[in-house]
Amino acid sequence: MPNANRRLVLKSRPTGFAGPQHFAEETVPVRAPEDGEALLESLLISVDPAMRVWISENPGYVPRVEIGEVMRAFGIARVLESRADGLAVGDLVQARPGWQSYATLPAKEIEKLDLSLGSAEDWIGPLGLTGVTAYFSLRDIARSRPGETVLVSGAAGAVGQMVGQIARIDACRVVGIAGGAEKCAYLTEQASFHAAIDYKTETNLAAAIARACPDGIDVFHDNVGGAILDAAIANLRVGGRVVVCGRISQTAADELYGVRNLGTLIGKRGRLEGFVVFDYEARYGEARAWIAARIKTGELRQKLHVIDGLERLPEGLGMLFRGENLGKLVVRVSQ
Amino acid sequence: MPNANRRLVLKSRPTGFAGPQHFAEETVPVRAPEDGEALLESLLISVDPAMRVWISENPGYVPRVEIGEVMRAFGIARVLESRADGLAVGDLVQARPGWQSYATLPAKEIEKLDLSLGSAEDWIGPLGLTGVTAYFSLRDIARSRPGETVLVSGAAGAVGQMVGQIARIDACRVVGIAGGAEKCAYLTEQASFHAAIDYKTETNLAAAIARACPDGIDVFHDNVGGAILDAAIANLRVGGRVVVCGRISQTAADELYGVRNLGTLIGKRGRLEGFVVFDYEARYGEARAWIAARIKTGELRQKLHVIDGLERLPEGLGMLFRGENLGKLVVRVSQ
Repeated sequence: MPNANRRLVLKSRPTGFAGPQHFAEETVPVRAPEDGEALLESLLISVDPAMRVWISENPGYVPRVEIGEVMRAFGIARVLESRADGLAVGDLVQARPGWQSYATLPAKEIEKLDLSLGSAEDWIGPLGLTGVTAYFSLRDIARSRPGETVLVSGAAGAVGQMVGQIARIDACRVVGIAGGAEKCAYLTEQASFHAAIDYKTETNLAAAIARACPDGIDVFHDNVGGAILDAAIANLRVGGRVVVCGRISQTAADELYGVRNLGTLIGKRGRLEGFVVFDYEARYGEARAWIAARIKTGELRQKLHVIDGLERLPEGLGMLFRGENLGKLVVRVSQ
Repeated sequence: MPNANRRLVLKSRPTGFAGPQHFAEETVPVRAPEDGEALLESLLISVDPAMRVWISENPGYVPRVEIGEVMRAFGIARVLESRADGLAVGDLVQARPGWQSYATLPAKEIEKLDLSLGSAEDWIGPLGLTGVTAYFSLRDIARSRPGETVLVSGAAGAVGQMVGQIARIDACRVVGIAGGAEKCAYLTEQASFHAAIDYKTETNLAAAIARACPDGIDVFHDNVGGAILDAAIANLRVGGRVVVCGRISQTAADELYGVRNLGTLIGKRGRLEGFVVFDYEARYGEARAWIAARIKTGELRQKLHVIDGLERLPEGLGMLFRGENLGKLVVRVSQ
């Protein structure tokens, strides 16, 4: 058993983007597992926009991370020691180890990976929460149908690229919005999007969407919020649905953007709907089976953006908000 | 047959509220009906917020009224002459006579009133489009359930008071937002609302809603838009639904209000949905049968705000936007 656990605790609450200045590194003894617990070694830690919400004063629907607490995070880990049934040394698992090299957790908070569905990288990527989020967004909230036009914001991000590819497999016309030529090229050349819009170079985003979606939008899957949401609503078709999935442009904003085009919803019989993937926990298996099958045929992939080293987690969180990641951002803590 | 038809035509497009200065009165010969047509005498003309939209440059989902055209309007009329099967002299009908004393219309645009359901006043009121709108908003869009909290804006207006009363009959807790003490007293004393909020005297509307709806809002039926919509969204419960039915605060506004609280939709699994009552035309009979039965038991009524004289129609349209009506605004053109 290792004896030193490196960990990062919340030092102060950010205003604006989060970064290294808001976290402090500590080294503490590793706690041996008690009955019903296991000791995990963190391998891959997921970096998600929601984490910025968890460290804000009023996070809303999840408890906040307190000052001095280890930063909360999902990740893939390996069992180093087990005093729990069903978990054996060497098992690969998913859990919420947080930002630390070792975590001692109760077995009920640890899920053994089904490696017949995919590798550890697949489990933090397309089989993880971002893939499952994309699946339920299209299936249950947007209810997209073949032939419909699906617009996705944050399209090169973790959820966005999964939404786009699933919609494409479902025979939709798929348009992505992303920042920069590299991300846009990725979308059309590697992620099966029909078209991409670079919001950084478009002076009139609503007009750009209208050009890319000449018949209007049936589904807008929004990960960004703010002005992009407003521009998309202006282009809704009759019966159009907007999934309010994320709002990375607003999460750390000084002042919230005011959406002006909601009146469009009347004549267009439009709908905006928010959702939280945790509500679908009982059906994760359905989503993972569908995604795993498409990974195996090569129809579906999720690009991972991997950076190395526990100490780079705070930097990773900042990267997300500055749009510096292409794909699902992951920090490799151990091999 | 009368020979002089007084009518009001659109003279100029308003910026801001509409009023007498935007319409011109003309007297033209009455046109005799041809085969398949009937000549109608206007009795009661409906004054609706949507009419301001019809005279704007870009009305959206309905054709605009052109300069020099008779102002479009729904109303109740009497058949003076008929060359159409199924319409007899003296029949009471509903149609779109427009702002004129006599209209010659094809029979397919004329619907004979079923007086077993209610009187001419009932047909322009609770059995008319505003009552039917309220019914489908709750039944099909909001899908309100017994015990839920239903908040209604523009609650003393035509649609709002119907929504509130129907929700009360359906065993919901009903709170209305209206402007001024008289309207608020009307809501709680005569229209069966549990509570009323006077938006004109509340400095913090979100806090006032929170006090009146301590468990949050399950359904918000919005006729107003703007800051009231924002304040209501901030008070949604998990699974809350917002019906975007009207937006009278925005229809004639110089600058559109920006709604900042849409992020709430994620954690609250909330939904905003717009609708157009005309989509439900095939089911108007269902709504009218339900409403007529409750009118007869005395459980449901719609207060009409009647003003007299064709020439007062433009003034009536302005009254709606200044909030000077209490109930469904109607102009009596002839007895």
